[in-house]
Amino acid sequence: MTEINVNASTNYRIIIGDNLLSSVGDYVCEILSPKKVVIVTDDIVDDLYSNTVENSLKAKKIEVLKFVIENGEKSKNSDNFLKILSFLAQNHITKSDLIIALGGGVVGDLTGFVSACYLRGVNYIQIPTTLLAAVDSSVGGKTAIDIDEGKNLVGAFYQPRLVLCDYSTLSTLKPEIFADGCAEVIKYAVLGNRELFIHLYENGNDFDKEYVISECVKMKRDIVEKDEFDNGERQKLNLGHTIGHSIELCSNFSISHGSAVAIGLNMIAKSSYNKGFCNKECVELIEKILKKFKLPVSTDISKNELLKPILSDKKRSGDSLNLIIPYNIGDTKIVEIKVDDLAEYIEA
Amino acid sequence: MTEINVNASTNYRIIIGDNLLSSVGDYVCEILSPKKVVIVTDDIVDDLYSNTVENSLKAKKIEVLKFVIENGEKSKNSDNFLKILSFLAQNHITKSDLIIALGGGVVGDLTGFVSACYLRGVNYIQIPTTLLAAVDSSVGGKTAIDIDEGKNLVGAFYQPRLVLCDYSTLSTLKPEIFADGCAEVIKYAVLGNRELFIHLYENGNDFDKEYVISECVKMKRDIVEKDEFDNGERQKLNLGHTIGHSIELCSNFSISHGSAVAIGLNMIAKSSYNKGFCNKECVELIEKILKKFKLPVSTDISKNELLKPILSDKKRSGDSLNLIIPYNIGDTKIVEIKVDDLAEYIEA
Repeated sequence: MTEINVNASTNYRIIIGDNLLSSVGDYVCEILSPKKVVIVTDDIVDDLYSNTVENSLKAKKIEVLKFVIENGEKSKNSDNFLKILSFLAQNHITKSDLIIALGGGVVGDLTGFVSACYLRGVNYIQIPTTLLAAVDSSVGGKTAIDIDEGKNLVGAFYQPRLVLCDYSTLSTLKPEIFADGCAEVIKYAVLGNRELFIHLYENGNDFDKEYVISECVKMKRDIVEKDEFDNGERQKLNLGHTIGHSIELCSNFSISHGSAVAIGLNMIAKSSYNKGFCNKECVELIEKILKKFKLPVSTDISKNELLKPILSDKKRSGDSLNLIIPYNIGDTKIVEIKVDDLAEYIEA
Repeated sequence: MTEINVNASTNYRIIIGDNLLSSVGDYVCEILSPKKVVIVTDDIVDDLYSNTVENSLKAKKIEVLKFVIENGEKSKNSDNFLKILSFLAQNHITKSDLIIALGGGVVGDLTGFVSACYLRGVNYIQIPTTLLAAVDSSVGGKTAIDIDEGKNLVGAFYQPRLVLCDYSTLSTLKPEIFADGCAEVIKYAVLGNRELFIHLYENGNDFDKEYVISECVKMKRDIVEKDEFDNGERQKLNLGHTIGHSIELCSNFSISHGSAVAIGLNMIAKSSYNKGFCNKECVELIEKILKKFKLPVSTDISKNELLKPILSDKKRSGDSLNLIIPYNIGDTKIVEIKVDDLAEYIEA
């Protein structure tokens, strides 16, 4: 078991271990005394893990309520946002109670945003059940929903009170969902962790879960502590994401987040090589590791289509845009470019 | 002109003066360099003041967009919340741009919440055009929308970058809207400002606008600086509001916020007298000043009806509830009571 402390606007622990779900009640009662807990989860996770979590809370005499959404990115919408808010109000949830996000990034982002807004903020904890959520969305307090105009355009910075990452849940993931998380893990390695890159390159899918998740979470923790509100350093986490988000949107979310990030990462590495920023070995290693993890490295969506959503991308500031460019494995830089020059960077 | 500085999670100025609207562009450019400004306002305020604000911004070469909602509390809903968010995204508003809330509390609360959530937070300034907004909702960063289950149940703590209070706008208020604000002003006086109470008692509606608004804003500023996130002291601002909100809801918002607060204030003062907390002179003075300002002091909504919404009130914490009880003019205390004992406090 690994414990990582986050010192952001709220201080909290991230606990990474095996078979934690049956102890959720204990962890909750160490820091809070809720009368009621509302578990928000999706239909797939509900079948697999809700009972374990529920029983562990009930053993502590906590009343448990549950709100189940349909699995998939399309559920991260304003409709579910409003429905859950009404559910909380109808059940008279107060600031002394607790919300639990049990699931992947969709459940985590949506539930976090609901928790940020209900009564202007109630306690919530994240229990990620996908690799992607474990290393990314459950940590750092970025919450959001999608609107028709784009992904994550509406949300809040709102830290959980605790993150419980039980990596035994990863065993039930479909291969493509697991691969999704691998794309994000590879991103961390390229971003700033050569040893992690080597471990992943050598072990492929059989990597050491606790080591890999812990390394990613520590990297994210360090960045979040420096820049909680995403005004500088934190943008580095968007390596591969500017193009990635656009790919997701253009494909109407038929291309998953991880696949889109893998393609985005490969595209930006190629641009970096073409511009003379990174060397040939670096760009080749990135493509090789992505293929090793059976992740896609290109798309047939046209350059012009990909450009459109980026214009309303939230990372854009006036006429310019920050791109995260790999210079070497473990070394990336934030580069401000003119929106007009963006097309050059989006070459397959 | 009076300038009041707020040192909360964001530091900002509140400027209270005559004829400030034509200088909005100057004030904006002192602190920000937006390319675009989105004015959110309601149909009544739009007819009266949008042009002045727009021209002052255009003189600074700022592109101005406008979103007009229907006047009235019913507009503070999730539908408008989502519509404005889409409007911002469709117009590619970025973090470098600025949102202006031009209007009363409905416009201010809704626009503030939109600004808190769009891209997880963009700059906004408050330009209150009602007395109620000037002394209350525009200051302190509490933003919210109403949902079917209750008023202000969904929102965020999100501070504006500037508050410009042009009290010349109060001259165009309908008498009942002006009276609404007077209820809130009287609340401040009862809460902790005897001199203000005397000034209001002696001058009635002809009170000194700059003095009265400044005194209220300073009181609110002092409380917000001590307790930005409403965990203690700030609850005092809810004097008259627990019952007041319930009256609004039970009347389906046909009773205005100010009238409801006036009734709530009078009811809680009477309870305080009945319980032996405040003396006869205090409870009589409160009723007298409310009547002097032509505000209602009682309702025919039944006690049982009034109790229902309070059960889901956001100020409630588990089985207990904090009520704000006047002990004397200028002296109030936060008293924690059991939910079961609430009925005793709701006596007409």
